[in-house]
Amino acid sequence: MTDDEGVAATAQPVSTERVRILLSVPTLEQEAMFPAETRAALADLGEVVEHQPGELLDPSRFRAALAGVDIAVTAWGFPTLGAGRLADAPELRFVMHAASSIRTLTCDDFWAAGIPVSQAGAAMAPAVAELSLAFTMALLRRTQRTDHALRGGGDWSTARSIPRAREIRGSRIGVIGASRTGREYIRLVTALGAEVLVHDPYLPEGDPLRAAQRDLHVLLRECEVLALHAPATAETRGMLGAAEFALIRDGALVVNTARAELLDADALYEEVASGRLDAALDVFEVEPLADRWRALPNVLVTPHLGGATVESRARAGRIVVDEIRRFLDGAPLQYALTRADLERMG
Amino acid sequence: MTDDEGVAATAQPVSTERVRILLSVPTLEQEAMFPAETRAALADLGEVVEHQPGELLDPSRFRAALAGVDIAVTAWGFPTLGAGRLADAPELRFVMHAASSIRTLTCDDFWAAGIPVSQAGAAMAPAVAELSLAFTMALLRRTQRTDHALRGGGDWSTARSIPRAREIRGSRIGVIGASRTGREYIRLVTALGAEVLVHDPYLPEGDPLRAAQRDLHVLLRECEVLALHAPATAETRGMLGAAEFALIRDGALVVNTARAELLDADALYEEVASGRLDAALDVFEVEPLADRWRALPNVLVTPHLGGATVESRARAGRIVVDEIRRFLDGAPLQYALTRADLERMG
Repeated sequence: MTDDEGVAATAQPVSTERVRILLSVPTLEQEAMFPAETRAALADLGEVVEHQPGELLDPSRFRAALAGVDIAVTAWGFPTLGAGRLADAPELRFVMHAASSIRTLTCDDFWAAGIPVSQAGAAMAPAVAELSLAFTMALLRRTQRTDHALRGGGDWSTARSIPRAREIRGSRIGVIGASRTGREYIRLVTALGAEVLVHDPYLPEGDPLRAAQRDLHVLLRECEVLALHAPATAETRGMLGAAEFALIRDGALVVNTARAELLDADALYEEVASGRLDAALDVFEVEPLADRWRALPNVLVTPHLGGATVESRARAGRIVVDEIRRFLDGAPLQYALTRADLERMG
Repeated sequence: MTDDEGVAATAQPVSTERVRILLSVPTLEQEAMFPAETRAALADLGEVVEHQPGELLDPSRFRAALAGVDIAVTAWGFPTLGAGRLADAPELRFVMHAASSIRTLTCDDFWAAGIPVSQAGAAMAPAVAELSLAFTMALLRRTQRTDHALRGGGDWSTARSIPRAREIRGSRIGVIGASRTGREYIRLVTALGAEVLVHDPYLPEGDPLRAAQRDLHVLLRECEVLALHAPATAETRGMLGAAEFALIRDGALVVNTARAELLDADALYEEVASGRLDAALDVFEVEPLADRWRALPNVLVTPHLGGATVESRARAGRIVVDEIRRFLDGAPLQYALTRADLERMG
């Protein structure tokens, strides 16, 4: 993790006099990220030109928009920066990604060009962690079962016929992935009195979470709630299949606000459809989600909105401004990424 | 509040040799309240006889069951202890109510008889507070809107078209009623970073919550989440009507795990049906609930299960045993109630 370590920008400071900043963030998200004060702070750093990402898919419009641009503020839907695009952006010396994953933004050509890139994923971690907590609380109380029963016309006493609700205080929660989001989730549930077990093969020496570290199979057997907070990497894809779900105790709860690729969707579906496990899911094997998930009374479904809060967007805008200022000052970036980081982060 | 103050039992200690304890709690709740260890602790205090409350509605069976009973452990559905019932329970010297409200249990005759009564409502407060937190988190994230849209067959992008989600950290939550439950809820949301405003005319001198105390109208105007934790008393019934709801800002969230009588159901319904406010409700003006609430996409409904968790039932059993032990030892009861308490507690 490089969350808390500055990484020196490789480019030299650029004079503010002639800095040109491309702001290319989908309209609604841009408004949420850059309220007046943050937008003014960005304008203090250079001349800001705005183009919607969709517009830049057209190569000639990309070329025209990127002319003279020193810094690009990108987000969802920005074109991949391959050799052709980079040739059309000859002045580009820093890419500040206002969203999280830079997987579609970057490629071999981009990394070969050596342009520093940073991202605002830290802005989203608290939002995703809070959704994961909302899911955890809902499942512990089985509110999805009772709400769905009542809305479906079920009678009062049938709606009350749920497995007895549980409290978060004293519950045992297994967290897979001590990511930024995972750590924030752990902080929240611990504040509410839950006992946490963690599985993450990369906990550093001296990390206080090491005391809670468990072998994956032990964690699965012991937890009452399983919360996924790992990235989707070559190592984690499909880490939870039928054999792993079978280790989880009857009546346990599965929360996934991370990545659908972490688990075998068919295997989880079987366990939830049988009623043995309940689940709350923000991410799906196919998005828009496969119809099968919509029909299960014991699953709570939300459309991949984990990171999308008022507060997270505002934080992202502030991170963008702060990182650009650091870049221009030649100061270490807070959230710079390398190609190696990308492999680990998914 | 007498939560933390002992109240001296008026009866004299009873020799354990001949103590007869009636245990009259609905079967499923009894099992949850008295797992083996707690049941054994109860049996250590006297001879325990069990009768289901429904059975005791028959006067002759009541008379037979109560013969020689010194202590009655009651709960939901136990007959009101009027003069006739009390005449049939001549040895009765302590009533330990394993649930919360003793309104239907007690009456003028009961209070006139001077039999001490205690209750296990404290066991439920953390459970209700956690449901209120679950509701708060769900509404902040609008998971009820997205889940209902997706389950109703709505497409992905429509389901995503919600007012932007909010985080609990930094949110402003108005709490009506610094009850035991209200205080526990305040503790939880404060731990998660919310700012709390309180309305309760009976905050004692020196109470730290006094700094957060607000006039009701000020609280309604300022809050982003309104959480009800007041008892239903002559003073609080109908305290929130159309005029009060109109003061609440657009997009605010209403959580009621307390009592339906606190608010004008029609007035709240209008505000939620219009989409101006979202709500999560565990209590209803009519239970089983009126159909109109089931049809609103922006309301989360649960069937009055706020206090019903594994943990709260187990706590109730431990309180029952502890209070009976105190009574038998002549020690101050932890949760004794007077008639005056009942007026205040609702």
